[in-house]
Parts: sequence; structure tokens; C-alpha cells
Amino acid sequence: MFMREIELRGHIIDSLILPKVFDKILEMGGDYKVLEFEIGKKKEDPSYAKILVIGKDEKHVDEILMELRDLGAEIPEIEDVELKPAEKDMVLPEGFYSTTNHKTFIKYKGRWIEVENQKMDGVIVVYPEEMRAEVKTIRNVKKGDLIVVGHKGIRVIPPEKPRESGVFEFMKSEASSEKPKKTVIRQIAEEMYKIKEKVKETKKGGIVVVAGPAVIHTGARDALAKLIKMGYVQALFSGNALATHDIELSLYGTSLGIDVKTGKSVPGGHSHHLRAINTIMREGSIKNAVENGVLKEGIMYECIKNNVPYVLAGSIRDDGPLPDVITDVVEAQEKMRELLKGKDMVLMLSTMLHSIATGNLLPSWVKTVCVDISPAVVTKLMDRGTSQAIGVVTDIGVFLPMLVEELERLENERERADKERGRDNNNSIKEQES
Amino acid sequence: MFMREIELRGHIIDSLILPKVFDKILEMGGDYKVLEFEIGKKKEDPSYAKILVIGKDEKHVDEILMELRDLGAEIPEIEDVELKPAEKDMVLPEGFYSTTNHKTFIKYKGRWIEVENQKMDGVIVVYPEEMRAEVKTIRNVKKGDLIVVGHKGIRVIPPEKPRESGVFEFMKSEASSEKPKKTVIRQIAEEMYKIKEKVKETKKGGIVVVAGPAVIHTGARDALAKLIKMGYVQALFSGNALATHDIELSLYGTSLGIDVKTGKSVPGGHSHHLRAINTIMREGSIKNAVENGVLKEGIMYECIKNNVPYVLAGSIRDDGPLPDVITDVVEAQEKMRELLKGKDMVLMLSTMLHSIATGNLLPSWVKTVCVDISPAVVTKLMDRGTSQAIGVVTDIGVFLPMLVEELERLENERERADKERGRDNNNSIKEQES
Amino acid sequence: MFMREIELRGHIIDSLILPKVFDKILEMGGDYKVLEFEIGKKKEDPSYAKILVIGKDEKHVDEILMELRDLGAEIPEIEDVELKPAEKDMVLPEGFYSTTNHKTFIKYKGRWIEVENQKMDGVIVVYPEEMRAEVKTIRNVKKGDLIVVGHKGIRVIPPEKPRESGVFEFMKSEASSEKPKKTVIRQIAEEMYKIKEKVKETKKGGIVVVAGPAVIHTGARDALAKLIKMGYVQALFSGNALATHDIELSLYGTSLGIDVKTGKSVPGGHSHHLRAINTIMREGSIKNAVENGVLKEGIMYECIKNNVPYVLAGSIRDDGPLPDVITDVVEAQEKMRELLKGKDMVLMLSTMLHSIATGNLLPSWVKTVCVDISPAVVTKLMDRGTSQAIGVVTDIGVFLPMLVEELERLENERERADKERGRDNNNSIKEQES
Amino acid sequence: MFMREIELRGHIIDSLILPKVFDKILEMGGDYKVLEFEIGKKKEDPSYAKILVIGKDEKHVDEILMELRDLGAEIPEIEDVELKPAEKDMVLPEGFYSTTNHKTFIKYKGRWIEVENQKMDGVIVVYPEEMRAEVKTIRNVKKGDLIVVGHKGIRVIPPEKPRESGVFEFMKSEASSEKPKKTVIRQIAEEMYKIKEKVKETKKGGIVVVAGPAVIHTGARDALAKLIKMGYVQALFSGNALATHDIELSLYGTSLGIDVKTGKSVPGGHSHHLRAINTIMREGSIKNAVENGVLKEGIMYECIKNNVPYVLAGSIRDDGPLPDVITDVVEAQEKMRELLKGKDMVLMLSTMLHSIATGNLLPSWVKTVCVDISPAVVTKLMDRGTSQAIGVVTDIGVFLPMLVEELERLENERERADKERGRDNNNSIKEQES
Repeated sequence: MFMREIELRGHIIDSLILPKVFDKILEMGGDYKVLEFEIGKKKEDPSYAKILVIGKDEKHVDEILMELRDLGAEIPEIEDVELKPAEKDMVLPEGFYSTTNHKTFIKYKGRWIEVENQKMDGVIVVYPEEMRAEVKTIRNVKKGDLIVVGHKGIRVIPPEKPRESGVFEFMKSEASSEKPKKTVIRQIAEEMYKIKEKVKETKKGGIVVVAGPAVIHTGARDALAKLIKMGYVQALFSGNALATHDIELSLYGTSLGIDVKTGKSVPGGHSHHLRAINTIMREGSIKNAVENGVLKEGIMYECIKNNVPYVLAGSIRDDGPLPDVITDVVEAQEKMRELLKGKDMVLMLSTMLHSIATGNLLPSWVKTVCVDISPAVVTKLMDRGTSQAIGVVTDIGVFLPMLVEELERLENERERADKERGRDNNNSIKEQES
Repeated sequence: MFMREIELRGHIIDSLILPKVFDKILEMGGDYKVLEFEIGKKKEDPSYAKILVIGKDEKHVDEILMELRDLGAEIPEIEDVELKPAEKDMVLPEGFYSTTNHKTFIKYKGRWIEVENQKMDGVIVVYPEEMRAEVKTIRNVKKGDLIVVGHKGIRVIPPEKPRESGVFEFMKSEASSEKPKKTVIRQIAEEMYKIKEKVKETKKGGIVVVAGPAVIHTGARDALAKLIKMGYVQALFSGNALATHDIELSLYGTSLGIDVKTGKSVPGGHSHHLRAINTIMREGSIKNAVENGVLKEGIMYECIKNNVPYVLAGSIRDDGPLPDVITDVVEAQEKMRELLKGKDMVLMLSTMLHSIATGNLLPSWVKTVCVDISPAVVTKLMDRGTSQAIGVVTDIGVFLPMLVEELERLENERERADKERGRDNNNSIKEQES
Repeated sequence: MFMREIELRGHIIDSLILPKVFDKILEMGGDYKVLEFEIGKKKEDPSYAKILVIGKDEKHVDEILMELRDLGAEIPEIEDVELKPAEKDMVLPEGFYSTTNHKTFIKYKGRWIEVENQKMDGVIVVYPEEMRAEVKTIRNVKKGDLIVVGHKGIRVIPPEKPRESGVFEFMKSEASSEKPKKTVIRQIAEEMYKIKEKVKETKKGGIVVVAGPAVIHTGARDALAKLIKMGYVQALFSGNALATHDIELSLYGTSLGIDVKTGKSVPGGHSHHLRAINTIMREGSIKNAVENGVLKEGIMYECIKNNVPYVLAGSIRDDGPLPDVITDVVEAQEKMRELLKGKDMVLMLSTMLHSIATGNLLPSWVKTVCVDISPAVVTKLMDRGTSQAIGVVTDIGVFLPMLVEELERLENERERADKERGRDNNNSIKEQES
Repeated sequence: MFMREIELRGHIIDSLILPKVFDKILEMGGDYKVLEFEIGKKKEDPSYAKILVIGKDEKHVDEILMELRDLGAEIPEIEDVELKPAEKDMVLPEGFYSTTNHKTFIKYKGRWIEVENQKMDGVIVVYPEEMRAEVKTIRNVKKGDLIVVGHKGIRVIPPEKPRESGVFEFMKSEASSEKPKKTVIRQIAEEMYKIKEKVKETKKGGIVVVAGPAVIHTGARDALAKLIKMGYVQALFSGNALATHDIELSLYGTSLGIDVKTGKSVPGGHSHHLRAINTIMREGSIKNAVENGVLKEGIMYECIKNNVPYVLAGSIRDDGPLPDVITDVVEAQEKMRELLKGKDMVLMLSTMLHSIATGNLLPSWVKTVCVDISPAVVTKLMDRGTSQAIGVVTDIGVFLPMLVEELERLENERERADKERGRDNNNSIKEQES
């Protein structure tokens, strides 16, 4: 038998950290004794627990601690993290520590350092001279990089449950199509409006939209284009299909050869997407096509016009693909990760592949909304670790136009309110003056 | 080897009758020879085929003919239908003919009689004195009823493919969420508008709405209530859940205990549906509740106020149920069948059970639109024989409000057009006068 | 401001009762202060918390307490439950208490009485003379029945999380198709085997199977029939479709007219289900058909032969229905509830309607496994309150044969082991003797 | 008004070519007159039709003909195809002809040439010196390549409906989970067995398996490994996830950190997939890992051991990815297309992305079976043009083990039969000898 003490701090009861710790210990065949426990008397107060973890031997207890740490347990550390150099490019030392998507600190030379560029399933590389640490993916590891191994000197802080109300509180339960949709849409709109205001002021953060081609096929193209124009999109992640069908729609008025106005197929329509690709091939890029007046509307057009950066990531389904598509998936991931830095919200629209990919690159404290007609997409996203995601099960073809309407209503309302206040201010000034 | 001649007439090529006939013969191990064939030269012209069906023996050919008849083949008949009396109530004679949902004629005493009250999976009862025949379900068969047996003297006429354009032409393909939704909604609205105009004029036919409780949970309650008020619903088929949640919403502002405005659960909310049921129990019926001023809005309210008949059919999931619910399912079916007579369109909204049940009662020439977020519902409906159904895969919570908007737009447009015309007429009258 | 104390006892942390209580208070706009807290030092030890609930006024605190009670909070009671007589048959007094599906006690004349026949969404009727209380559905309430109103004198005890391992521990997470299926099947089989042994010994409890017609269409009919024969089914809940298609298969070798051996449609096959119904109509009941040698195999046959009671509940989709079908849904519910009493496990196979209906009638401590190819079915079942259900997302057509195989393997293994032991015992006896 | 004659030949009625031609003409606002029609008198006889297509003007008729050609209509050609050189690498000339996935011939210098390497959405490049033509994707077009433009001199031959029985006949209808699964599995097994025999004999063709990671998570890993070992897989298409989880299972006995035997999570399990990747990274490739004795079982192991070529195509969801993954999607497509050449069958297992990607590269005459628990995958595959695909809606975790069992049964049976025959032959030889 072997024992070791751990500590837990914060809202460990309502954020379910304490129950999860008990569960995990028992699940792994260990046992525990609570040494101290102080519950937060009031809702603001943090709680505190000191727990003795009991296992069969040192290795067993170590294994348990390793798991508990990722749940947020603090193992009172006297030791620093252990580092080992990478043997070769892209080859990690034995026993490397694999990251979560939660905020992480490491103890190095006696100091706690916050790890930068957090994402799940990466490794921590330490730069001793700069007293800095960051998460790297295995592909980016270079020979000699100092990699954190074992599980000493690491502290993980999972997000505490939001106490604020709003969509992220309201939607905490399961993905289900059976929610009052107008209410959900209103709450997402309010969140987005707040972020836009913040971006205007601070020039930082913002919203990343991840979108699949169903946006076009279901007739929501113009709504997404408008969202970009209105300033609600700070980066767009998508693939060849969305861009191609958006451009097809701009050039020929069809999506997959179907006239989206009449709903009928048009002669030669099935080849329109290839013709759209060829048109951009001839121009050399979407940007050129916009600048040369060839492309005059749509999602990609608004991205170019409003300087919204985009990543069109390649997939083996692609026809063409367009010259703007990054056909190397590792390169595309890198660019996506770059653009995600510091963003406040990710809006995932009808694409399982891109949504899970983006989730893999995200720290757990970024607000994430996933809209899909299939509840399975949201379930999978959360199963794959993006547990902060909120699912809205609905038809993107009707959801997006209603979201845009709601945002317009909100903006008008605030504008009117501002004017009112302006007038009131003026009046009161006048009154004071008079 | 045994042979027999059949004939096919009409748009047998574009309605796929001829290919299906060839298929069926070969599938059943038979063979054929085309004796005569005259193709319709122009699109309006019917085609004609005389085909020799070849089988192993008389029984084999008979089996084939039995199947071909339900596909629309005419077996040149010299004989009348064969009739046998039912042995007991609800017990059919051996060899009874089981009906399709297509228009059917029988040859009786040398005359072709159209069978009334067509539905699938029924039997044909003949009334010799009145020279009438109708489809009855097995439960309604009385001892001594003269039932058609065998397969002589029967002619089945499947619906020919609509040549008109509109949603029923456009949506002919698979149920898929990937359709431009606004276009689909516009086309359904136009169809409904036409029917409403017809009903106003002729006081006949109309639209049956079949609705599940998701209409309420997703926030589309007011839209359906409005649809009724606007005169687009001539009968409503639903169950205890929809009515209860509609009444819960009217009385408490909640659906399943969730405030549909704020999306939050309210204290004691989970018992609201029981309290709603108890309120109606106390009044004795929904009608009483409306008349006594207890129930003041919503779907059921509008049904009462606008004299729209409804069937609330019981199911084993029901809490309560409400006093208006018909707890005997056979009785509920009868009432539904009664109300379906002569209707022009059925709009199925988010309910697999009621949709398939209604499909079972419908002749195949009634226009049928099935709206559901799950494509499986539409597939099952069609697999179960309601092959005329058109599937719209979308979220009812956003579909219904948009449909109502579209209908309002349409009505305003036509009204304006009528006024224009009125003014023009007046002007021309004045001009003439002057 | 108004306050009141509550107490919580048991495994309130790992069963998530404490976090849920904090959540609910804050969600309802209240506040709390922890007065005492004693955490279970070891895993076996219960914890204890005394919490001050703070609200705006007495009504607000009352509303909060009402919700907390259903989560398992004890409100130190000095008072008895409050009773009011039902005004009329099926009409409840104002303020009636609506039950959960958890174990419930009421304080009556100073004594705590366990409520019998627990189910969700019912009311508690008290019989003063017998000092008994039971849950009744609204339909069964008679004028003068003494109904519990308000929320005094009620104690609710939600099930604590199972600590034992096995499928109910393993599957605690989301319904997902991505689980190792063989492992899941093995664990369900072990659970069923244990229950069968218990039933053999005690003649009590057992397994209720709730099955939809997909069992037949997907080719798992013989597997279910075998399960019944092997003694793993103590009651069967289903509808007209399953029974009809089972009988169709027994009489004609087809399901929905498709030969299940060759997968091909047979001549006249579409009418086989009607002919099957007519055959039973003629016999008068399924039992007669078995006894007269007309029905010789299949699910219904095994039910009759093995004295397994069944409920075939009517639905508006039914053709026929068979004479054994209970067409009144309220009556069917009653019979289902009767058969569920004391059962240990419910196995739900590919039927949303019957599964949710059965869930509505079940207390929360009965083990519930729901097998369906669509994850939405499990989600809905749990959303509707049957939160103890474990979901297995798979194809029933391949799941059931594998389950039967696993059970046969298990039985052979145990038998062998018993023989071994028998031999060993004999040997040791002989050894002792010699 | 403008007119032009077309001809149709073959089984144009049962393969639905004639009805589709009529449909398309009317849909595009044209009209027709049947000039000659000779129906195949017997089932083997081809039919013949000469039809006058009528349009508003020459352009309109041309548009109609363009569409009809892809349906299989022959436009009596006096002219050769029209060719234009590509302006630049990857830039097509205006008016290029976009290919279908059907067998295609072009008339060049008065001769009909079959186009090689058929796939949908490519272009036809003509090599005059060699009198050869092939389909190229836009990315592979080089400056100066002679591309077919317009729609003269092209003949498309869609596959006629298979008349043979077997799974491809049986399953012609909709993707549905409601099919007798054992029958379906048996028929697929028979098809696979026939192909394996053919491959043994001719050393040509074979089966391509396209597999997603659900194969591992659902516990069907060993079944797929066995399929490879038994010689039923001539190429494997998959991605990083399947290979990583397969290797994780081989090295650690877990899939996504879950022990597939016990179904429980193991300590540190969530990092196993990264450790698996790192292990292969260190070895340099999967092949090295097998040869160095590091990887000792599983899907990838069997591929290496049995010389089954594989393509692991990159996706933006990938962790790592493994060194064997082709991260450039265009390169991966090329390799997949290469391996598909001449194959007889494609078996798609639980992966939408790879299935649609493979479908895009396939000619329409390759037998294609798509197995997925979600009917939507099959629907999408067919919507995207792979209309020959047959859908089996089931759980791969139970389907694959049953398929392997069936194949083993089949092989034993045939072996036994061979031995019988061998014995019989020997006997008869002996008899003759004696």
C-alpha cells in the first residue's frame, strides 16, 4: 500500500471536480481518505479539500495522480517538471506528457509558468533561457527541443462552470432538436453582439466561423455573406466545397447545378462547379478574381472585401481544388491554429470534419457553438474532447437567416437606444444650458 | 408453360409503369413477349402496350398477374369480380383481395364501378343492390359482407406522374436536408394558397395538418395557431402531447416546464403538463375551457374558435390523457379516415407515428408533404406505402414561422394585385363612362 | 429575505446530489450558506450537509424547496403531508404533488410511510385506515381519494450511483455507436444471467422485454423467440406490428412480404400481414392459434408455450389489429404497469414509442437498457425522465443473435463449472471416505 | 423552333433510360416526337427509339442534347469531337466537357475511341498520335493538353441494370436498416468469394476496402485484420485515425484509451494514440515497425505481411499524423485512383469522407457496397453521383465479425465440396480402373 496527498481548490463541487476525482480514484482501483475539507460557505467562496490517495504501490498511485492532475488536482509539488530532449525531429522522448486543452502551468526552476498556445494532444516544450513554455504538435518538434516528461511539476486548471446566464448556461444540457429555437438564436446573437463590440474597442479576439457546404445547398449563402459584411466574422475556416459552391452561385446562380431561386436544375448545371474552379484557376486566386471584377458577391467575396482571413483546408473529396486551398493538411492545421489565437468564440456550421479539427486546436475556455441538423455531430465533437461545445440541432438553411435578422434587430435597437440617450443627453445639456 | 395477355395504357413510360411491369415479371421468374406497342408520339399522347406474360403454369401466371394488376396492368376481363361473404364479424373469407391506395375499379355485373373510400390494406365490400363498392378495414367487416376475393375483375390505376411544375415536381428526388429551403417553402406556400382559394369557393376539400409535440418544444406553436386562424387548416390530427403542451403554454407560458421566452426552467415546471391536463379535466373538455374563458390562445383554442375539427389519438405514452383524447385507437382511426375524405393535401409536421398512421388511411392521389428533422421519417413513410409523400428535412421550429411569413406575403401580394386590378377596372369603367 | 434549512445525507458528492442542489438554488435566483458539512472520509462513508437556503420571500423559498426535495434534499419536517380529496373522478385538487420516479416517503400521522407503485407524473393517494400510500395516475383517481398536495412531509430518495462494475457502470457515458460491441453484449448477458438465476430461486422479479417490429424485419426474430424459450423474458411489451409480422413469418416465411431467407419479395407478399391477422381473427386469439396447431413457432408462440405474459398495445398505425391487441391505450398502460411490478430489468429493443411509454411507468431503480440503431431514441428516453437508461447504439438484427450466443456460451460455461465442482466435491467426498 | 434527332438503343426501358430522356426534355422546356420505336420483344432483346427533340432555338436544343448524351442518348454524329489546348497548367479551355462516371467513347478522326481511366468530374484529354484518350483531373492538366470541348462526338453508355440476382439486385431499393441482415451478409460474402476466386486465377482486379476508425472503436478490428489475411482485400484506403487506433490496440490493447476487452479506461490511456504515433515516428514507418518486431498484429500489420497496398490519406483532424500518412490530399487522391484501376468491388466501411472521396474516383461499373450505421451516409454518397452504391445500414462492430464468419463458412463448404468431388473423382477413376 502506498499513499500520497493531493489538494483541490475552487468551485470543486459545482464544477464537478470533486465527484470526478472520487470517481477516478475508485475506477482505477484505488481508495481515498478525506483529510481536510472546507466547503465554500457562500456561492462566491471557493472550497478546499485535502485528500489522501491510496494505491497498491508507488506506480499505482503515480498512475492515479497522473489522471487526477488532468482533472485539476494539485499535487503539492516540491519538484520541477522533468525535461528530456527530443531524439530527432518529430520523435518524442519516452514518457512525454500529453496535454489537455485546459489552462496549464508548469513548475520550472521553482517558478510556475503558464504554458502558451494550449491545445489538446500536444506536448510541452520549455525554453529555459526565456523561462517560457508552449504546446507544440508532434510534427513541429525539433531535435533537441526540451519536452516535459512524466507528471511532476504540472498543474492543470479546468474551466469552472459559467455562473453567468445566457446561452452557455441555458444550453448546458444535451444536444437536442427540441429547444425553442427563437430563444436560442436570440441568445447566440447577444453573445456575438457583445464580442463584436469588444473587438471594435480592443481590436482583439473575435469570432471564428467554421462552415460546411450545406450552408450553400440549403440556401443560407447570403446570410453568411452578410454576417461577414456586418463584422461578425474575424476568420473563416472551410474547405474547397463551400468556396467552390459559393463561387458557382455567384457566377451561375446555381449550387450543385440547381438554380437556388427556382429549385430546378439548369442545363449543364452539373459541370458548373468545375467551371467555377476553372475560372478561379485562370485568375490565379480568389483575391485576383475579386480584384479583376470576375467575382462580385458571396461569402468569399466578402472575406476578400472585408479583409477576413480564411483557411480553405484540403480534403480527399475535393474536385480541383481551388488554388486557394491548402492541400497539405498539416500546413492547413498550422494556419488554423495561428488564426485561432486569442479568439473569443467559434461558431461551427454544418461540418463535422472541420468542427472536430477546429476543436482539436482550441483551448477549452473558448466559447464554442456547434450548429448541425444531426445531433451525432455535436455528440462526436464532445466525445473527442471539445466538451465546452454547445449544440444547436437545427437546419442551417433556416438558422442562419434568422440569426442575421436577430443581429440586425439588435443593432437597430441599440442604435435607437444610443440616439435616445444622445437626445436625452442633449436635452439635459440644453436644460442645463437654459 | 402458360401464358396470358395484359394491356397497359397511359403515360406508362414516364410514370415508370412499363419498366416496373417488366421488372416484376422477371423478378417473379416469369418471362414476357411484347405483342403490340404504340408509343405516345407527343408528350400528351398516351402509350399502349399489349404484353404476353409467360409463366411455368397457370398458378404462376396468376400470381404474376395479381402483382401486375396492382401496378396498373389491365387484364382484359370477361369475368366479374368474385365475391364471398364474411364468415363472422371481422373474419374475412379465404383469398380476400387486399387493396392498394390507388384508384380502383371492379367489374360487377358487367359494369365497371369505382371503389369508394380507397385506402391501402383494406378489403373491398360490394353492395349489389346499390351497385356500389367501398374499402373497409378488417375491423369493420360484418358477417355476411360480400368481400372481393381472388383477382379477377379488378383494375388499379396508379397516379401518373405530375407534369405540372411546383413543389411536387421539384422535390421528386430523395429526402435530403440539402435543398434550398426558402425555395421549397415558397412552393409549398403557393400550393396551400391555391387550395385555400379553392376551399373558399367550393366549400370542399382542404388541408389536413398532422402535427407532433416538437411543434411546441421548438417554439413554432404560435405559427401553427396562426396557420389555423388564417384558414389553412381544415382538420388537425395529433395526440395528447401536442394538445397538452399547447395548453400548458397557454396557461403557464412553458413547454415541458421550460419558459419558451427565456429558455429557462421555472419552479415546479415539470408538473405543468399535469396541471394543464387537470385544468381541462375539471372543465370537462377543451371546448368548455375555451367557452369558459379558461383557455385563451394557442393551437387548440384556434381549432375551437375556427370550427376546425381535430382528432387527438391516444398512445401508450400519454399522461392523463386529456378528456378530448380518443383512447381507443380503432375509434381514432375511424374518425381520422372520416375527416380525410375529399381533402386535397396533408401536411405532416414532425411526427412519425401520426404521419404513418395518416398515410395508411390516405388514397395515393392526395398531395402529401412530410416535414421532419430526421430523413428516416420520410424514408419510413414511403417504405410503408405512402410513396406520393414529398419529404422536407428541416427543423420545424424554424420552418413553420417561415411558412406563415411566406403565406402572409403571398396574401398581401394578391390583395394588392386585386386592388390594382380593381382600380384599373374602375379607371377603365370611368374612362368608358367619360 | 427568507431562509430555511435543509439537510442532505448519503453519497451526495459522487451521486452529484450536492452539486445539483447548489445549481438549482442559484438557477432559481436563490442563494445559500453551508452551515455544516461533513464529508465521508472513506468511500463507504456517507457525507452530510446542512444548508441554509435563502430566497426573496417565503413563496420563493418554498418554490426552491419544492425542487430540492425532488433532488433528494430533506427538509426537516415537523409537519405531516397535506391531503385534499379529489373533487370528482379524474379531477385533482389544486396544488396536487406530482411524483418523480424515485423512491418516495411521506410523513403521515407522524410516521414515515414508503409510497407504493412508484412512477413519474402520478399523484400520491393516502389510505388513512391502512396507513398506506400509493401512486395513482390521474385517470384512476376517484372522487374523494385523499391526494397529497403542497410539498410538506415528502422525502424523495434518488438512486445513488452504482459502485459495482458491470455494464451499468461501464456505459455511464453518452449513447454512442462507438463502443466495443462484444464487450457491451457480454456485460448485458452477465447481468441477465444473474437475474435469471435469481428468478429461478426466488420466483420473483425478472426481465421485461419491450420490442418493436424491427426485430422481425432485421432478421432477429428467432433470436428473440429463443431468448423467451431460454427463460430470459418474464414479460413482453409490444404492439400489433411485431406480433403480426412474427405470425406472418411463422405462417408464410415472410416479413412485410419479403422472404427473410432469400431476401426477395414473394408473390402476393404484401398482403401476408393481413392474411396473418385474418388467420388469428378466425381462431379468436393467438393462444387458440397455438393450441389448435395453427401457429407453430416464433415469438408469440414461445410466449404462449412458456406462459410469458404479454401486452400488445394498440396504436393508430395498426392494421387489423389482432384480437390480442388492447386497443384502448389507457387499459394497455394499466396492464403494463401491473406486469412491471417488482421486475429487475427492462430491455428495450428498437421501439421509441413503447420504450418511452414503459419508461413512464418505471421506478428509477429498475435497470434499463435501450438498444436502438438511432442514438436519438436513447436521448429522448432520458430527456423524458428515464435517466437510468443505458443506451446501446447498434443494429438489433445483429445484436440479438450475438446476445443469445453469449448467453448460451455463459450457460455452458457455468454448467461445465458446476460439473467440475460436482466432480471435485465427489472426489473430495471420496477422498474423505477413503 | 429547332429540332434534332437522337437515337436510343439497349434495355432503355428497364434501365429507365427512355423515361429519363422524356423527363429531361420536358423539364428543360423542350418537347419531343417519337419517330420510330421498336420494343425488345423478349427480355434479351434490346429496344430502339428514334426521337425528335424540339427546342426554342439551336442553343436550346444543344443544351438539351448535352444533357441527353450523359443519359446515354446517341446523337447521330457526323462530326468528330472538338479539341482545344489547355492555356496553362491546370487551366482548362472555355467550354470543356465535364465527364460522367459512365463508360464513354469519343469520335476522333472518324473512329470511336474508348476513354481510359473514367471518373466523374474530370476532362477528356486526347493524344492524337496514339489515338488514345483519357480522363484527367483539372490539377493534372498540362499546358497544351488537347481537351475535349463542346458536346459533339461524345457517346456515354450508362450501366444497364443488372439482371443477375444476388445482393446487387436484391438491395436495389432504399438504404434502410430494416433488412434481414443475415441474408444481406450472406450475399455480400458470396460476391466477395467469387471475386477472390477470380483474383487467384487471373491475378487481376479484386476488392478495395475503404474503412473508418469506427471499425476499431466498435471492436471489429480483428475481423478486418482477418479479412486481409484471408485474401479478401487487394487495397486498403483509410486515414490516420484508423491506422493510429489499430496500432494503439496492437501496442496497448486500447482504443481511444479504452481497454476493448473490459470496456474500461486505463490509466494514461488518453495519451496512447500519441504514444502509438511516436513509436512509429521513431521506427520511421509502419513497415519498419513490423520488420523490427515492434508491431505484431492488427490491420496495418496484416497489410504489410500480405503485401496489401494502402493509402492513408491526411485530414485536418489528424493528430501526428503517422509518417505513412500522405498529408497532401491531391497526392493521396492520385495514389487512390491508381490503386482503384481494374478493381471489381469497393467495400466502404463507416467513413463518409473516404467513401465519397473513393466514389468520386470510381467508374460507375464497379460494384460498390457502403456499410454505415447512419442512412444519411449512403444517401449522400448516391447524391454525389456514386449511384451504383448499395447501402447496408448496420453497426460495423457486429457486421464485420459476421461477414468474416460467413466467409469462413463458405470457404469450408467449398473445400468440403471440392474434397467430395475429389473423392468422387478418385472413386470414379478407381471404378474405371477396376
